[in-house]
This record gives sequence, structure tokens and C-alpha cells, in this order.
Amino acid sequence: MSQHRLVNPLVRNIRALKRVALVRQSVRIEEEIKQGMKKPYNEVIDVSRDNPHATGMKPMSFVRQVIASCIYPELIDSDKMPLDVRKRAKTLLECIGGSVGCYSDTIGIPIMRDSVSDFLTRRDEGVPSASGKIFITHGSDHGFGLLLTMLVRGDRSPLVGVLTPVPSQDFGNATLVASGATAVPYYLDGQQGWRLHTEELQRALRSAREVCDPIALYVINPGDPTGHVQSRESMEEIIRFVYEEKLLLFANEDHQDILIGEGCMFISYKKVLAEMGSPFSDAVELASIHSASKGFMGEGGLHGGYLELVNFDPSVQIEFDRLISLLVLPIIGQLALEVMLNPLQPGEPSYEHYQEHIRETLVHNVTRAFEVLDSLPGISCEPINGGASMFPRLHLPHTAIHQAKEEEQLPDFFYCSRLLEQTGLCVCPGSDLGLPEGTYHIRYKAPPTLNTNVFIILLLLFITSPYLQSENRPVSECLNFLKLPYN
Amino acid sequence: MSQHRLVNPLVRNIRALKRVALVRQSVRIEEEIKQGMKKPYNEVIDVSRDNPHATGMKPMSFVRQVIASCIYPELIDSDKMPLDVRKRAKTLLECIGGSVGCYSDTIGIPIMRDSVSDFLTRRDEGVPSASGKIFITHGSDHGFGLLLTMLVRGDRSPLVGVLTPVPSQDFGNATLVASGATAVPYYLDGQQGWRLHTEELQRALRSAREVCDPIALYVINPGDPTGHVQSRESMEEIIRFVYEEKLLLFANEDHQDILIGEGCMFISYKKVLAEMGSPFSDAVELASIHSASKGFMGEGGLHGGYLELVNFDPSVQIEFDRLISLLVLPIIGQLALEVMLNPLQPGEPSYEHYQEHIRETLVHNVTRAFEVLDSLPGISCEPINGGASMFPRLHLPHTAIHQAKEEEQLPDFFYCSRLLEQTGLCVCPGSDLGLPEGTYHIRYKAPPTLNTNVFIILLLLFITSPYLQSENRPVSECLNFLKLPYN
Repeated sequence: MSQHRLVNPLVRNIRALKRVALVRQSVRIEEEIKQGMKKPYNEVIDVSRDNPHATGMKPMSFVRQVIASCIYPELIDSDKMPLDVRKRAKTLLECIGGSVGCYSDTIGIPIMRDSVSDFLTRRDEGVPSASGKIFITHGSDHGFGLLLTMLVRGDRSPLVGVLTPVPSQDFGNATLVASGATAVPYYLDGQQGWRLHTEELQRALRSAREVCDPIALYVINPGDPTGHVQSRESMEEIIRFVYEEKLLLFANEDHQDILIGEGCMFISYKKVLAEMGSPFSDAVELASIHSASKGFMGEGGLHGGYLELVNFDPSVQIEFDRLISLLVLPIIGQLALEVMLNPLQPGEPSYEHYQEHIRETLVHNVTRAFEVLDSLPGISCEPINGGASMFPRLHLPHTAIHQAKEEEQLPDFFYCSRLLEQTGLCVCPGSDLGLPEGTYHIRYKAPPTLNTNVFIILLLLFITSPYLQSENRPVSECLNFLKLPYN
Repeated sequence: MSQHRLVNPLVRNIRALKRVALVRQSVRIEEEIKQGMKKPYNEVIDVSRDNPHATGMKPMSFVRQVIASCIYPELIDSDKMPLDVRKRAKTLLECIGGSVGCYSDTIGIPIMRDSVSDFLTRRDEGVPSASGKIFITHGSDHGFGLLLTMLVRGDRSPLVGVLTPVPSQDFGNATLVASGATAVPYYLDGQQGWRLHTEELQRALRSAREVCDPIALYVINPGDPTGHVQSRESMEEIIRFVYEEKLLLFANEDHQDILIGEGCMFISYKKVLAEMGSPFSDAVELASIHSASKGFMGEGGLHGGYLELVNFDPSVQIEFDRLISLLVLPIIGQLALEVMLNPLQPGEPSYEHYQEHIRETLVHNVTRAFEVLDSLPGISCEPINGGASMFPRLHLPHTAIHQAKEEEQLPDFFYCSRLLEQTGLCVCPGSDLGLPEGTYHIRYKAPPTLNTNVFIILLLLFITSPYLQSENRPVSECLNFLKLPYN
């Protein structure tokens, strides 16, 4: 039959990301290396996405020991594993029916909802959390995907719109488009640490209303890839905005556990909402997500997350329950999530190593990477207060922009593709995150180890001379800073 | 805002499964047991779904050892694991970027497509398989879900229809409805081992064309829950049917590795199609799925599967590739799939145990369970040739049917709910699998160990006296067969 007539037009609307072309280029390069072709590097380092384990981040031993013991329970009875690991694995194994091969209930393994609810109540210093309003997911995207499946139908006219921050990654592009909604961009302020201005939200909403039916505002806090952490005042402004404009509030709080800036604190939207009191606390409909894929766990391959609904209409939640009844959830991701929500406490045998790992891995290295990056000629970077992504601006010279256009490429992609070819380093062009022409950025997930960081920054530096402006800062100055020779 | 106006009507169309009510009943019962309420049993045994690990099936040690070693790589260097385990884990770990915490590529970890393609070529004795036409998934439902997302759009009028076998589980209900398609039932012949008759397909197609735009025929072989295994002749008839009627063919071949009947063989639709030659082999568009969740692995909690497309229009496959570019796949399920596709070979240290496990677990116990079940008064069962589900018919007496109707319940659900309350055994009512009123069945996944089987059958027996007809076979005769006292 002619299938082509069948193809869902929404699928055709999915925008191809440039990153995909870079991944293909990486595969080709690695194939060439394998076949013995000489390159100035031995492997491709991919820092283009939030995938820390792929760039050398070590997983937390406790998490992995617990999961390995659940997978192969003979380990529980062996002396290979510390006592607290065996104890935790035994408890979890009982909750999942004795085997990780069991299907999970559609609402998650029995303890999960309570675990999330206890975690949220602790985190929000007593703001109550009901386990019936918590939904276990494959990860953050999945949570919003479910919400959008419930709220959006492809044939609605005008289209359903979701106000989405720029820069930000896949959500605006993929999950949204596939559901039949449309992303309405609002722009974060790249001159002021990627802050969100309410005036910009108002402008975006006005222009959205001309082309679609905007139903929700999507915020990411701490920002990804921007590293911005919202202040309480800014969050209150946003809550007032969605209240007045009768929008749902979708909060991606995936990076809540990585805080870099000194004195920087994470406050959840749920807490701010509760503390603002009536009429906001009873009226604003909030959906918030978190997962073990991002944040300090970085266990992207394991797939565990949750979604919490606040103030959702009970009749709508019945429909959501119905949709959830179709879910089949992977067990391993839930185990990772459980350990993330209930980390080791002081006094438990594995505690020391665990805490040290978090501290060392995250804060120190991200801070250091930012300092070095911002010192490079031709590159500038807004401060990183949370999360672990860098989003530096490239000051591309006119010659590079001109050459890119001659080759019919976006200038940022042109830079990324050249960088990958010449150094084996794969970063993501800012245009993939929705940034319009005019300024050029790259997304770069700071690898957790200092050595890898310094190495990557050196690679960025090598490409600097031909393609980036010097901004009066000679290369030698940066090398001096790095205390490494330039050869 | 009033969210209710937003709710996607497709979500409202999702039919609530009675099994969900039984699961809730189970939770309530277990809570009561925990609180010390006296019951004639200590726990609920749930055999209502294909979830063998939940009913005591032991996972294959090799699979779990490999995965545990990938999760916690310190095990690779230890003497805790056999040599072949450590070797396999090392190879796999290299393929996934060194950590199970890494995100997988959207087409799966690099070796996966080749692994599947090699497996298929071996299985189909040389029928070629291209890795570019293979898509790694979270499991079978996910594969069809993706296909339906590509092919179905909610607002198409008339609705897109998929001919779906009855009895069969979730697919007809959930994945399909959520995509906006409609399931058109065709009925398998419960008098003849649940065979599929082409005349019934023609009847179903004619009636479908009055209400929707039927685009595909969905078949399950080996049958689930029916245990029927299609003959080559029957498959050829079906291929001719879809060719003539210009339908896509969706083949769920999830249970291909569990063959029970003596001399029973599995042949894939792809192989039959290839061997039928032109015009069929070039024209019939086939999508086939398999997974590690069902079959002899039964690793439902781990989520690994694949989908193969045959003869799909290249321009349509481009759209499918675009859709796939949104995927984020769990790593652990892919590892389970890889071990399933490349099982141990004779001579490898862990081989003996592995083979023995498969043989003992599956064939012997399913055969035994069938024999006993079919001998019970008030229950009859068609032969099981493949898969591990039982789908016995209940000969409910009029008094039981009458009582069910008085309580406004479906008679099969009435039986299941009573059985659960009185014995702690949870089975699935046939009406959940689409069976219309008139005959009553239960789905019951045969647990893999003989002891559990005998125990469960005894439970079925206890409920027999009040609710099932005796059919002239006294209970004592069955007890004699079981060689167990009736107390």
C-alpha cells in the first residue's frame, strides 16, 4: 500500500538537530581511526549533551553496588559488598517482588511514590506532598511527554502552545512537536547571566496568542544549558504571571542538586507557591519533574524520574491516572531514583566516600572549567550557578562567518564541525537550542574530572587561533593561566 | 485555568482493564495480611500477566552476572564471576562507552543493530537482514507504539484501524487507542486450538471498512495468551490476504523461543515471506517485534526489544528515522537483549547451567501445568504449543453467572475476584482480552516451577466446587492425579 499517505504530519515537523549530524561525523571519524587513519587525536570526546558518564564521570559506588546486588542477589550474601549496600539491596529487592525481571506496577514499585513524597516534604521543609499526585517516569522528558499526551491533541485548532525558554534543548523541539503542540520561544537574557525577564514572557505570550492557544509556561531551574539559578523574587514574579494569564506552570527542576555559585540555593516552585499563600497557592497548577538521569547522579542510561502535580483539577487527574495505567516502567531506573532520594546518612559505612565524590566531582570541577573557559580569547561565558553545562559565547570573526555561509552552514555548526574534525572534541551548536542567528554559542557539558576538563579546554584553544577573535588577550596569557605549554 | 477542556479525548477512550481492579484488590488484601488479618493464605500470587519472575522464575545466572558486572565493573576484576561472564561484560562495557550511566545513541548502543541483524540472519537461515532496518526499543509495545505514532494521526477521518486478534492483551486496548487508531477485532477459534481462519479475517475486514480505514493486520505468533503456534500454510494464507487487501502486516513474535508442543517449530513471518518469492516477498510490508521481556528471558523489568521493518517505503523509513532520533533508550534492557541474541555456546564455562535452566524452566513445567489444568472439573484448556500462558475456559454454572449479574459484574471477573479473595491467587479475566460475553476464560501465566504450579492449581481447585460445574469428574479424581491430599 502507499504508506506515504499515512505518515503523521507531526513526525514530519520534527526538526533535525545539527547535533545528530555531528554524532554521525563522530562515528565516521572513529571508524577512520579504527582503520588506521592518522589523526592528531586517538578518540572522539563527546561533551555535546548532558551525558557525564560518557566523559569519565565515575558513578557513585553505593548506587552501583546496590543495583548490582539487586540484579545478581548472590552478591547480597557475599562479602564483596559493604553491609549498608547489602541491607539496602535486600530491602529494595523485597519491594520489587524479588527480582529486577518483574514488571513494575504502572504507578511504580510500591515504595517509590512514598519515597518521592517523603523526599519532597523534607526538601520543601514541610510543604505537604501527597503520594497520589506523584507519577514515576522513565525520566524528565517522559513526564512532560505524558502530560502533553493528556493535554494536547494534534487536531486542535488553533494549535496548543507552550512557552519554552531559549536557549534550551530537546523539549521545545521533540517531545512537544511529537505531541502536536507548538513551542513558543521566550528568550533568556544572555547579557545578564541568562536571567528570565517577565516583560519578555509578556511579549512572548502576546505574540503566541496571535498564532496558537498558549496553555503553559515551561521553565528550567537551575537553567540548562545556561547555569542560571532563579531567585525567589524571580520565581514569585513568574507565579504571578502564570496566575494572571491562567497558564499551567511546567517546572523542570532536574538539576536541583547541583549548585555551584557561592551561597546559591535551590528553592522549588512548589515551596515558593505554598509560601506565597492564597490566591496563588490554591490556584496555580504546577507540574514539576526531577530525575536520576541529570543532577549529581547523572545516570542517564538507567531511566528513572518522577512528575508531581500540584493543584490539578481532580477530574483531570482521573484522566491522567487512566493514561498512567498504560505505563510499563523499567525497574533499574527506579532503583537509581530511590537511592538518589534516600542517600546515605552520616554514620553508614559507605557515607564518607559518597559525600566526597559528590563534592569533588561537581562543584570544584565545574567552577574550574568556567574560570578557564572564560579566560580564553574569543570566548566569553556567563557565570554558572547551577547545573553542569557551560554555554559560552563564541566571538567568531567575520571571515569564519563568511566561510560558513559560503558552505551553506550555520556559523556555530561550522565551528563545531571544524572543531570535531581537527581536535576530536564534539560540542553542541547553540542554534540547536533555539538561538537565532546573530550570536553564536556552544553547549558543552563540563566533564567531571579536572584532567579531562583541562584537556578539553586545550582542544578548544587549539581551534581558537584560526576561528576566534583574539579580543586583545594573547593565547600565551591563557596558557600561562593553564600552566601548560603551547606546542 | 479550566484544564478539563484540554484533556485529549483519546485518553478518555482508554478502556479500564478489570485486571487493574484486581491489582487494587491484591494491594488491599496484602495490606490486610500485613495488619494481621487472618486469611487462609499468607500472600497474593499474581499470575494474571506475563510476569514470570514475579512468580518464582529464576533469572538465568549468566544474564544477571553479565549485567551486574557492567553495573559495578569492579566485579569484572574479581574472582566472584566466571571467566566467560567477565569477558562478555568487558566487551559490552566497551560498547556502551564505559558506563551503564551513559545515554545510549537513539538507534541503540553501537553493536545492537548488528547483533540483531546477525541473530535474524542465523534464525532465518540466511534470509538477509539489514541493520539499518532494525530499531532498538524499550520492548515490544514500544516498537508498535512508535510505528503507530508515525502512521496514525488522531484527527484522521475516518479513523485508522488495525485488525487485532481476540483474545489478546493490551495492544488492542492501550497502545492503539492512545495513538488514535481503533482496534478491529478478529476472533481466533477457541474450539480449534485458537487457530486463525482467513474467512474470519475477511469478515473482520469487511465490517472494518464500514467504520474505519483499516491499514494493518496484527498477528501474534506464537499466540499469547492462546499458546497456538501457526503452521507455515496458515502464515502463507495470511501473507496472501494482506497482499491482496493491501494491508501492512504487524507480527508480534515475542514468544518465538518458547515451543512446547512436540515437533512444534517457529518460523518467522519474514522467512515465510522471503520463501514465497515474488510478488509477495517484494511487496508485503512487514513489521516484526521481539524482546527480552517475554520468551525464555522473561526480563520484563529490564526493557529491551527490537523492531524490524521489511519492504517499507524508503521515504517512510526516513520519517521513521526522524521519529527514532527522539528516542532515549535504557541501557540495561539492551544488555539483556544482547545476551538473549547471543546466548552461550557449548564449551563456554557457564553453558551447562544455562541450557538446563531453559529446558527445565519452560517446556517441562508448562506441559505439566497444562495436563493438570485440563483435568480439573469445570475447566477445559486448548493445547499449548508455544508461549507460557494458559487460557483455560471456565464452565461457570448458571447460578454463578446469575449471581455475577446481580452484582453488576462480568461473570469472569466475578470468578477472578472471588478466587483472589478466597485463595490469594490473581488471574486475569478473559473479557480483559476482548472476549465477548458467552464463554468465560481466565488468563494464567504458568509459573516456571513445578511446586508453584501444583500449588496454584490446587487453589484453582478449591474454588472449583462452589463456582464451577463438575462435568461428571469428581474432585477426588483430580486429587488422585495430583497425588495430593484434599484437606
